Amino acid sequence: MKKFLNKPETFVDDMIRGIMAAHPDKLTYVNDDLRCVVTAKVKKGKVGLATGGGSGHLPLFLGYVGDGILDGCSVGGVFQSPSAEQMLEVTKAIDSGAGVLYIYGNYGGDIMNFDMAAEMADMEDIRVEQVVAGEDVASSKKGEEHKRRGVAGIFFVYKVAGACAAAMKDLDEVKRVAMKACDNVRTMGVALSPCIVPEVGKPSFSIGEGEMEIGMGIHGEPGIERGPLKSADEVVKQMLDAILADLPYVKGDEVAVLVNGLGATPKEELYIMYRKVDEMLKEHGIKVFHVYVGEFATSMEMSGASITLLKLDDELKTYLSMPANTPFFEQVQL
Amino acid sequence: MKKFLNKPETFVDDMIRGIMAAHPDKLTYVNDDLRCVVTAKVKKGKVGLATGGGSGHLPLFLGYVGDGILDGCSVGGVFQSPSAEQMLEVTKAIDSGAGVLYIYGNYGGDIMNFDMAAEMADMEDIRVEQVVAGEDVASSKKGEEHKRRGVAGIFFVYKVAGACAAAMKDLDEVKRVAMKACDNVRTMGVALSPCIVPEVGKPSFSIGEGEMEIGMGIHGEPGIERGPLKSADEVVKQMLDAILADLPYVKGDEVAVLVNGLGATPKEELYIMYRKVDEMLKEHGIKVFHVYVGEFATSMEMSGASITLLKLDDELKTYLSMPANTPFFEQVQL
Repeated sequence: MKKFLNKPETFVDDMIRGIMAAHPDKLTYVNDDLRCVVTAKVKKGKVGLATGGGSGHLPLFLGYVGDGILDGCSVGGVFQSPSAEQMLEVTKAIDSGAGVLYIYGNYGGDIMNFDMAAEMADMEDIRVEQVVAGEDVASSKKGEEHKRRGVAGIFFVYKVAGACAAAMKDLDEVKRVAMKACDNVRTMGVALSPCIVPEVGKPSFSIGEGEMEIGMGIHGEPGIERGPLKSADEVVKQMLDAILADLPYVKGDEVAVLVNGLGATPKEELYIMYRKVDEMLKEHGIKVFHVYVGEFATSMEMSGASITLLKLDDELKTYLSMPANTPFFEQVQL
Repeated sequence: MKKFLNKPETFVDDMIRGIMAAHPDKLTYVNDDLRCVVTAKVKKGKVGLATGGGSGHLPLFLGYVGDGILDGCSVGGVFQSPSAEQMLEVTKAIDSGAGVLYIYGNYGGDIMNFDMAAEMADMEDIRVEQVVAGEDVASSKKGEEHKRRGVAGIFFVYKVAGACAAAMKDLDEVKRVAMKACDNVRTMGVALSPCIVPEVGKPSFSIGEGEMEIGMGIHGEPGIERGPLKSADEVVKQMLDAILADLPYVKGDEVAVLVNGLGATPKEELYIMYRKVDEMLKEHGIKVFHVYVGEFATSMEMSGASITLLKLDDELKTYLSMPANTPFFEQVQL
C-alpha cells in the first residue's frame, strides 16, 4: 500500500483536519465531531440540504458543501456509512426553520441511518424529506431502477437541488427538483484497477494486466463485462449505448454531460473519451448544454472513469447554470 | 500500459479534439493546427499571455488559457516541446497591439523554441518579452536558481501575471509582476510511482514497492533522496523544511500554498499532507492567505505530490485574488 498517510486508523480524521485547515472560511464542524461537516455560512430561512456517505470518494460527499449546493455532510470511515447520530447533528445545525432535504446514494447502510436520523429529527420538530439517488445503469436492469447504485450522477442532483434551495424555494419544491434530476440522470462506469482501503491494506479485488471491467461500481461492485481493454472509442461506445437506451435519451433531447475520473485516470484520457461522447451525441441528434470533465466522484486511487448524462428541460437548465462555490467545486453563472 | 486511448500516436490530438468539443465557447485553435490553442475571446488592447510545453501535464499548460489568466498555448507531444512555428502562430493570434509575454518552464527545448519564436515575432513587429519559471528547489542548489526546473509553481506565475494583464497593465508591468512571482515561489515534489508515455509504452523509470523519491521532477528527473516511504507528516516535513530554508520564508511572511497531486494521488492524501503543512507554517509564524489543493500540474498517472509556497505582498495578493475562468480552473474573487 503506497499512500501518503500517517496511520490507517487516522486517515479520515487527518484528511478532515486538513480540509478544515485549508478552508476555514468555508467549512466547519459541529458537536465537536470532525465528521459532522457543515457550511460556515448557514443561510436563514433557506431549506437545508444534507448528504452523507463513506470516505474515499472526494469530492464526494463533503466537497459539495458550500454556497449554492449543500449545507452539511456526515462523513463515514472509508466506504462506511456515517452514523444516524452524526446525520442528526448535521440536520440540527443546518435547519433554520424551512426543513432539511437529505440527498444520498442508494446504499443499504446509508438508507438505514438516514431513515433513523429523519425519525429522530422529526422528534425534534425538524421537517425532513429524503431523496435517494441511484443511476448506475449497470447495477440493475430497466424496470428495477430503484435498486440502482448512486454514483457520479448524484453531483447533478446536488447541483440543481442546491440551486433551487439557494433560490429560496420551499422544501417540497426542492425535493421535486431533486427527484426530477434523479429521474433524468443515467451513468455507467468502467474500471481498470482497484483501490486499497487504508485499514485493509490490500486491494479489495484484482483486474488482470490488460483487462477492464465495464459497469463496475465505485466500491468495486461487480460490473457487467470483464475482458480485454478496448480502445477508448470502443469503451465509450459500449457505455454510452447502454446509457442512451436506458432512459431512453432521444433525438432532440438536450443534456449535460459528466465524464468523471475515478481517481488515477488522467484528464488527458477523460478528454479522449469525451471526444467520442461528443461524436456519438451528434450522431444521435442530442444537443449538449454543458460539459463537466474531471474528478467528481472517485474511489481514491482507482483507475477508471464514468459517463453521466442528465436530460434537461428549461427548469433544470436554469438551476444547473446558477453559480456555486465550494472548496472542491466552483462554477460561475453559465 | 492501461490507458483509455485509441492509438498512442493520436493521443494528443484526440485529447485536444475532446477539449475543443467540450469547451467550444472558451477555446479554439488557429492556423488549422489543433496544437495552437487560443482563447475564444481575445481582448483588444490587452497584453497577450502565451505559454507552451509538452503534453501529459493537464491542466498544464493549455488548461490555464481563459478569462483572467492566459490567452494562448502551443502544445507539444507528450513531454515534448511544441515548435517555434506553433508558438509564433499563437503569438500572432493573441497580439492585439500591446505585445505578448511568454511564460514557460525552464526546459531546454522550450527555451530554444520560445527564443526562436520571439525572434520571428520581432520580425513581424510584435513585441515579445519572456519569463522563464523555475522553482523546484530539489533540482539545483541555492545560488543556482536559474538552473531550476519549472514545476507546479508556474501556476502562481500565470495567475498573478494573468490578473495583471486583465487589469490592462502594460507589457513591462505584467513582466515585472510575473518575475516577482518567480522570485518568491518555491516547490518540492515527491514521487511514488512512474507514468507511461503512450508512444513508449513502458514506464520511464521504476520505484520499488514501498519506496518513494523526494525531489523527483515531473518527467521523472532524479530527485535528492530515494528510500522507504515515510509517514505523510515525515514526508511533508522534509519537503517543507527544504522549501522554507531556500527563499528563506520567515516569521511574519504571508504565503499562498499549493498542494498539487501529480496524477494518481487522491485528494484525501493531499489534504492529509496539507494538515501537516498548516501545522508547520503556524509553528514558523507564517500566515496563510489562500490554499489550493488539487491537480494543477501532473504527469498523467504518476503517483506523488508537490508542495509550493508563494510569498505574498499586497500587490501579489491583489492579483492572486482576482477572478479567473478557464475550462480547467475557476476562481471567484477571493
